[in-house]
Amino acid sequence: MRNIKIVIEYDGTDYHGWQCQADIPTVQKTIEDAIHQITKEKVKITGSGRTDSGVHAMGQVANFLTETHMDPETLKKALNSTLPRDISIIKTQEVPNYFHAQFNSLSKVYEYRIFNKPYPPALQRNKVWHVSEKLDSEKMKKSAAYLEGTHDFSVFATADITVKSTVRTVKQVSIRKTREGLILIEIEANGFLKRMVRMITGTLVETGKGKLAPEEFGQILAKGQKTKNVFTAPPQGLFLKKVLY
Amino acid sequence: MRNIKIVIEYDGTDYHGWQCQADIPTVQKTIEDAIHQITKEKVKITGSGRTDSGVHAMGQVANFLTETHMDPETLKKALNSTLPRDISIIKTQEVPNYFHAQFNSLSKVYEYRIFNKPYPPALQRNKVWHVSEKLDSEKMKKSAAYLEGTHDFSVFATADITVKSTVRTVKQVSIRKTREGLILIEIEANGFLKRMVRMITGTLVETGKGKLAPEEFGQILAKGQKTKNVFTAPPQGLFLKKVLY
Repeated sequence: MRNIKIVIEYDGTDYHGWQCQADIPTVQKTIEDAIHQITKEKVKITGSGRTDSGVHAMGQVANFLTETHMDPETLKKALNSTLPRDISIIKTQEVPNYFHAQFNSLSKVYEYRIFNKPYPPALQRNKVWHVSEKLDSEKMKKSAAYLEGTHDFSVFATADITVKSTVRTVKQVSIRKTREGLILIEIEANGFLKRMVRMITGTLVETGKGKLAPEEFGQILAKGQKTKNVFTAPPQGLFLKKVLY
Repeated sequence: MRNIKIVIEYDGTDYHGWQCQADIPTVQKTIEDAIHQITKEKVKITGSGRTDSGVHAMGQVANFLTETHMDPETLKKALNSTLPRDISIIKTQEVPNYFHAQFNSLSKVYEYRIFNKPYPPALQRNKVWHVSEKLDSEKMKKSAAYLEGTHDFSVFATADITVKSTVRTVKQVSIRKTREGLILIEIEANGFLKRMVRMITGTLVETGKGKLAPEEFGQILAKGQKTKNVFTAPPQGLFLKKVLY
């Protein structure tokens, strides 16, 4: 058996997220079907983690075991000509058998894109969150600084999570304003809880609107108690940018 | 009667271009229908020019005459909540009656986006031309320099054009490579012939592939004779960026 690592770009608009679910289109299932078409094998691919319905990726990583002798470059071309146009394979690579896309990941980088202009974004409508009220990105930066380091992030996660620990280490956060009116939030952490980036973003936007002070944002994280000031940003602005091993 | 100027952003993917045609969806018709829904008037809007099927705009300009007393800001909001999500009104402004979006334009700026990576662009699939062969952007720059100035551009236009003169002045051309693997071609001219940017781009790409020397590109323009070296780039990479008055 060979172990193949793949790096995937996808537009999540028309998928019910990454993870296989019976009878509904998911990214994982679509790739497994394409591999089946090419190799005639029923493989199960392991992703670095799930992404929600409507969330995109520039660099999702997955691996799968296969009997095929096809070289990785040929397999990549075959996959790209079999897959629908909203999923691309950026890279294929043969890796040692112990490689596991989920358990071996050291950190992940997510990007959240906010379109901060008064008119709706026709061209980027499925790739940004439209916030028409002018945001103060300096206040958002000041707030985001509280995220760096090791904290219990349960306040920025859905209540139904079943993980052992809600402690994560945020290695880096950056907030950048572009000339085209975008505010880009990039967060690198050793792991993310369910909805974490969307709940952080939704709450950072409250600070950008001046409804929550940066110090209050810091307090929410420090106290770790659920408050009405925590908001969830919509899925379509979120991109899984890369997974580091 | 009041004359209203509007600036429009649109995703051309699902439209048969700008210009009204019977029973098929066009951007012009969709906006006229939205104005009708709001004001109950049957207006005809005049665009700065047509865009082909699948071509996009960040700054198309149009104007129309109306009896409505609605202030421009309110009209903009009403239009944006009536229009489908792939068309946005960026700006509305009352202008003097003599203003004509087509005849008064001094120049237009188009941008063409090439995705120059070996794998297909899942996220930007309807907004770029995918050229997988590595392009030499320096050769493309050298070639593009021949375009600046006043020339007969008929060699870069479809044969069915019916304009009086095929002479146009290219005020500026720039070619820029981004870190994300895009090659952006920006052209400003006092006017464009039908398919001009797409035919210039298709031929510039030949020079980027090394199949045509920059000097030969210059010769094609200088001689003005149709040759098999002129190629047309697909519509989805093209954006009408702005119209200057």
